[in-house]
Formats: sequence, C-alpha cells, structure tokens
Amino acid sequence: MSHNVLTYLQENREQLLEKLKEFLAIPSVSTDSSHRNDIQQAADYLVTYLQEIGFKAEKMPTGGHPLVYGEYLAREDAPTVLLYGHYDVQPADPLEEWESEPFQPVIRNGRIYARGASDDKGQVFMHLAVFEAYMKTEGKLPVNVKVCLEGEEEIGSKNLYAFLEKNKELFSADFAVISDSGMIAKNQPTIVYGLKGLAAIEITVTGPDHDLHSGAYGGAVRNPIMALSHILASMKNKDEVVTVEGFYDGVEPLSEDERKKIAQIPGEDFAEATGAPETVSEKGYTPEEHTMARPTLEINGIYGGYQGEGTKTIIPSKATAKITCRLVPGQDPKRIQKLLEEHVQKTAPKGVTVEVKKESGSAKAYKVEPNHPLIQKAAESYTKSLGKETVYVRMGGSIPVVEWIDDIYDMPIVLLGFGTPEDRLHSPNESFPLDSFDKGMETLVYYWEKVASK
Amino acid sequence: MSHNVLTYLQENREQLLEKLKEFLAIPSVSTDSSHRNDIQQAADYLVTYLQEIGFKAEKMPTGGHPLVYGEYLAREDAPTVLLYGHYDVQPADPLEEWESEPFQPVIRNGRIYARGASDDKGQVFMHLAVFEAYMKTEGKLPVNVKVCLEGEEEIGSKNLYAFLEKNKELFSADFAVISDSGMIAKNQPTIVYGLKGLAAIEITVTGPDHDLHSGAYGGAVRNPIMALSHILASMKNKDEVVTVEGFYDGVEPLSEDERKKIAQIPGEDFAEATGAPETVSEKGYTPEEHTMARPTLEINGIYGGYQGEGTKTIIPSKATAKITCRLVPGQDPKRIQKLLEEHVQKTAPKGVTVEVKKESGSAKAYKVEPNHPLIQKAAESYTKSLGKETVYVRMGGSIPVVEWIDDIYDMPIVLLGFGTPEDRLHSPNESFPLDSFDKGMETLVYYWEKVASK
Repeated sequence: MSHNVLTYLQENREQLLEKLKEFLAIPSVSTDSSHRNDIQQAADYLVTYLQEIGFKAEKMPTGGHPLVYGEYLAREDAPTVLLYGHYDVQPADPLEEWESEPFQPVIRNGRIYARGASDDKGQVFMHLAVFEAYMKTEGKLPVNVKVCLEGEEEIGSKNLYAFLEKNKELFSADFAVISDSGMIAKNQPTIVYGLKGLAAIEITVTGPDHDLHSGAYGGAVRNPIMALSHILASMKNKDEVVTVEGFYDGVEPLSEDERKKIAQIPGEDFAEATGAPETVSEKGYTPEEHTMARPTLEINGIYGGYQGEGTKTIIPSKATAKITCRLVPGQDPKRIQKLLEEHVQKTAPKGVTVEVKKESGSAKAYKVEPNHPLIQKAAESYTKSLGKETVYVRMGGSIPVVEWIDDIYDMPIVLLGFGTPEDRLHSPNESFPLDSFDKGMETLVYYWEKVASK
Repeated sequence: MSHNVLTYLQENREQLLEKLKEFLAIPSVSTDSSHRNDIQQAADYLVTYLQEIGFKAEKMPTGGHPLVYGEYLAREDAPTVLLYGHYDVQPADPLEEWESEPFQPVIRNGRIYARGASDDKGQVFMHLAVFEAYMKTEGKLPVNVKVCLEGEEEIGSKNLYAFLEKNKELFSADFAVISDSGMIAKNQPTIVYGLKGLAAIEITVTGPDHDLHSGAYGGAVRNPIMALSHILASMKNKDEVVTVEGFYDGVEPLSEDERKKIAQIPGEDFAEATGAPETVSEKGYTPEEHTMARPTLEINGIYGGYQGEGTKTIIPSKATAKITCRLVPGQDPKRIQKLLEEHVQKTAPKGVTVEVKKESGSAKAYKVEPNHPLIQKAAESYTKSLGKETVYVRMGGSIPVVEWIDDIYDMPIVLLGFGTPEDRLHSPNESFPLDSFDKGMETLVYYWEKVASK
C-alpha cells in the first residue's frame, strides 16, 4: 500500500511545497507579544488542514498561546501514536542578516529558506502531508493518531506541562513520536537517544538610580556593567569549566564506551559550520563530547548603558544579562537555577543591587533505551529510505516536552528528526533541505507501516 | 554702571527665560547624525543673537559641525577675552525616564528642565544675555570679546584642535573664560583649578560568524559575551583599582596638603545624589579624592546577543563594550589608549577575534595656578554676588578645549561655572536652577568690570 502513498507525495510535491510556504509565511513568533494574531493564524491553519484530511481538530486554550489538538481514532486494530510538534518560531532578528525575507519562503539551491522551515513548522507539515497522502489514496491511516501541536515551545512551553497533566486521558497513547530534531549530517539516518535539559535565568545589576556623568561621579560609585562583568566572568573560566559551586554535582562521568561511540559518529566541522576562529570546549573533553554529553552555560544576551553612535561618558544605572544552561542527566534544573542565583548574589560586589529572575521553561535531561522495538523500526525505516545505517546520538538541544511526556505518561518516545546541521536553527537564513522533505516523508510512510504490522 | 545692567537683567528676566527656552528647544544632539539640521539651527540661533547685540558673527565650517565665531573689539582701552562654550548636547535617552520632554523646556520648583539646560546651552546663554544687557543700557561692553561656541564638545571636539591651530590669530586674546563647569553646591562659589583628561576605546569581540543554537553548538565554540566579560573584569578589580599594566605610571601622588584641602571642601552626599546603595572608591582613597584627583576607568555601554522579551537560546556572534577613562596630570591619553588595547589583546581568550577602536576626543588633564589675579577677580565676583567665600576644587570631568587653549595659546584660563550637583548632566531630567541663572549673570557683570578696571 505504501506505493500509492509515495506516488501521491511525488505527484503532488509542488502543491505540497506551496501549502508549506503558506504555513511558513505566518510570522508565529511566540516570544514577542506583537505577534499574538500571527500565532492564532498559524494555529487556525493547522486546525483547517487537519479537518480537511479527516481529523477531529480544535484550538485548545492553555492560558498562553493555544494548543492545536487533533485526533484520528478509526483503527481499532492498530496502536495509537501521540504526535508532538510546535508551530511557534524564534524571533527572526537580526533581520539585516537574512538574504531573503524570513517570512517570505523561497526555494534556492535545493533548500527552502524561512524562519521555522526546519524548527519546527517544516517537520510538522511533513507529518500532515503524509496523513493527507494516506487519506487521499487509502482512505485511512495505518495507525490511530493524536496530534498535539504547541505554540509556546520557543518560550519554554510555559503552559504545556500543566495542560498535559490536566488532560491526561485526552493525550494518552501507546507511544509518542516527535519530529523536532535533526540528523547529524544530511541523509545520515540518526536516532537521538539523549537530550539535554534547560535552566534559564536573567541577571539585572543596578547601581545608581539614573545614568551619571562619568566625570562627576566616576570614582564614587560602582559601575553596574563592570560589576556584571565580574559576576559573569566568575561563572565560567577560560577552560570552559563552569565555576558555579555544585554545578557538576550528580553528573554521571562519560564512559570510555560512550566516548568511543561519540568519536565514531561522522560529525560536522564545528569551526567551518560556525565560522568561529577555532573550536573551544571544556578542558578534558572534545567539542563533540561537550556538545552531546556535558553541561553548558551560555550568555545569550547582554545590555546596559549607551549603545548608539560615538561615545557617551556615563556611568549607566543598570546592566542585564540573559543566561541559559544545557543540562545532562543527574542535574535538576530548579536546583541549577538556585545555584546560579546563590553564586550571583555571593559574587556581587558592594555598591550595587542584583536581581536574579528564574525564567520558565526548565527541563530535565532525557535518555532512552536505543534497543526499544519502536526505535529499531524507526532506524530500519530511515535506512530503507536513505540507504544508510542509522547512527545513535545524544543531542545538545533540549525538548522539555520529551521529559514531560516521559514524566506524565511514561510511554516510549521516538525522536524522528529530519533537520540537518546546515539548517541554521534560531539564526538568520534558517532553511530545510528538499531532500529531507522528500526522504523524510518517505521514512514516515515506512515507519507507520512497520508500526502497524504486528 | 553695573546698576543699570543688573536692573535690565531683572526687568527683562521673563523675556530672557523665554529666549533661553527657544534655544533649549532645539535638539542639537551632536553624536546622532539624524540631528544634523538641529545642530545647524542651534548655530544659527547663536549667530542671530550675537548680531542682534552688535557682534560680528558667523558660522565657520570645521569639517564637522560648524563653530560659531563672534567678535566685539570696540574697546581699545580694555583687555580681550576669548569666551568658549558649546551648543551641542548629549543624547536624551533613555527618554521614558524624563518627567517632561527633554526638548520642551519647562520651569518647575525653581529649576528649568531640558537637555542642555546646564551643559552647556544654559551657561552659554547667560553670557550672551549679560552682553545684551550691557549693549542695551551702556551701549558698549567693558571688555573686548571673542566668542568661540562649539558644536562637537559632547563628541570629543573632534575638529576643534586643528581649527584653533589653523586660526590661531583669530582666537588670540589676553585670557580665556569658560563656563562649562559647576559649583560644588548650589550658591557655593567654586573655582575649578584642575580638570581630568579623557581617553576612549570601543571593544568588539567576535566568535561565530552568525548567532548559533546554544544546544547544537554550546560546548564547541567560545561565547563572545563571556569572552568580553573576562576581558572587562580583568581591567579593574573589586577594589576599584585599574589592573591595566602601566595605567598609573607617571601619576603624581596625592599630597597630604591636597588631601586635607579636598577633605575640607563641603562636598555632596554621593550616595544620596546618585541613588547608589553605597559609595565605592579606589582602595586607599575617599570618593572625593578618587573623583577629583585619581584616574578612573568606566564602561559606558555594553551590548550583544538577544535583548528582547523572554529567552532566546543562542550563542551570539558578537559583543561590544564602550570604555572611557578620566585621566590626571602625568597620564598621556594616546599612551593610555595603547595600554588598554594591549591589555585587551593580551587577555582575549582563544576562539574569538577582538577589535579595539580608539575613539577621538582624547584630552590631557589640566591644572592652573589658583592665585592668578584673573582667577582671584573671579573669586571676588562670586563672593560679591553669592555672599560666600570661594572654594578651589579639581573636577573629575574633562574639557579638552582647556588643555588645547593652554597648549596652543598659553593664555590664562578662568573656569567660571554655575552648574550644581543636582543638574543631572548627561542624564534624564537635566535641569539648571534659576538661582544660578540670576546669580550667575550678576557674577559675570561684576567680573567683567573687575577685569576692565586696571
């Protein structure tokens, strides 16, 4: 039966790409309240699409941006899968660095360029397109499906955990599939069996209650930017070792076996992919080991004082820094936030006040058993469509929902990702390869049939 | 004769304040190119006013913003004074912190509120108003006057030195008067006999060539904000001692006598004036000693990465910091810039590239002889109008032109300032007390007559 479905996908490729472009053209930026209406529009697009292909679908209020729920439960003889994805995207700034408009999708050099093309609207769309192909050719899907499409993933899925808990029955299924990750190289079948957790804080240092003339008051008060620099510099040393007391407590050491596995993965050239002068990683670990299996602390943004042309001779009143940590198994995000806060308060010099805001969207790290049959079927499906052996990796990224589904439902979770390292997630010129679009949908078709066949 | 002049100033007070408001209403922000036309308008206002009161006046091109030159040379029997001031102002941001519009001057609680009210348009205006009073009542001034009003003081007087050098004859005079400083307390006669120098740099740290997903690349590349924090934190320790090698070379030690003098000056309460939790100063020096007589290093602004609402999990491509140092006698600004650059390059960690931009507007520090007759006459004039003994102080601020006039003309320079510590120079809600406006003009009337009388 897969033959007709695959043929449909090939014959309708152009229309499907056009339909995808409509979806990507909606600037559903979740962190910026000025895009509230675009978020609604993106959710409506999904509800409509799901209804067109025979799902029961609706927007559900979460207290924040709506969640799109859809269900197809016509197969008494088949298992039920919970499919998670998100329709919100990261901000597009800095806009001037985009070669084409972030929300005017264009195809060039075999890639589709737009914010969300890979993370995660493009991958969500592939699932719906595959369902469409089944319904239009076979009139039914091989499995039962519950769809959970979120609008707050890029702002830490603020309301999702409470929502899943409150609607536990609604989302219960035999297993979950999430396509919000990538392959380690284009057309390299990849199963992600580990994810990092996340903990975020914002530090604001306040000195004087207004900007001061640096001549009149320089020498009498503490400069809040300098105070913030001392605090930040005390959190990670030049060996990339986090120096916040207790940060590494409970982190399981990297086994020789796992280090071998990581070394064998055909990885990307980090310096080439990032344009950095050279790679830098935690003392005693390779960049591959650090990104996949060791915790990180990154400053995501900083601001304070004068940012305009020329010089302005002031002592500013305030300075702010945003920090996120990627965590590994054994680290509790709430505890890490607390350790960071204690460190900041402890290292703050006199003459300033320091405020630490604990951001929402914390997540524990997650690891699954690579040998689970549902994961093995995924590996086989990849290999069938891409003609290569599947590799198993841990990912530096965080998908809070993975930990939460595990926590609330304790069901197997399969991470079926089709992105590539060149996709520039969260950066200007995000894109998604049309190869992944085609081969990914083919992989999904094989997978649903393997899952359906007892 | 001073009687008529003073009477004129009293009787025309309202009209003069209205005329001052017109001047302050022009947003002549020199650092921001979008205000180019406002700069021209402010210069035109001055040329017109000078011509109205019988000066020969014109705008002179400098290569940057125009300089307003005016001359009154009708008195063969009197000395000639070179009067310097500036008509450009600091940016008004952060705008939301102003209680009234920065360029819609209003009077409340005995103060006139507007950007430039004190620094320096208000004080420039007082001189012209006094000249107007003389011409309208006596038909002449007691002294010959050459007026040099600059439009680039707040951006480091980029073109002034070359201009003064090129037009040496034009500006030559018997002595110079500058009203761009303040009194240490309202109605406390103050002679500034020392000024600090200035050296400015901008540091930009670049890591990856685009913003990166902190999950995909955290652990593989250096975070440019963290690298910048390490560099900045290494420039000044928590004791407020600058740790840049060679920074204090050539700085003359503070004599016990000068420390006593400084201790006796009725100073302001720095914590109260700034709203800082407590004062902080260089180890071994009081805040008064540090601000007046010890060099400082301040970070004026910093930016990099995400500054919007919520969190954005990126490793940014770049981070930038703006730094200015206030210098004391013995420190050469160019050398200080070089030391800062060497320090930054030396402390920059691997994995990033660092660019140091040496900003224009450097100035050497300056000290004058407090016992010079022209300065004594100023002290007597203050005392006559304000009824208090004059105190002699060194100022933390920098007025490059003072050093340049000294350097090029070697003429005595008298700093006749009328600002107060509450004026909020360079900050939101800048203002100038009407007391200083009235008493300052009275002081100027007395001064010109003392100077004229052999």
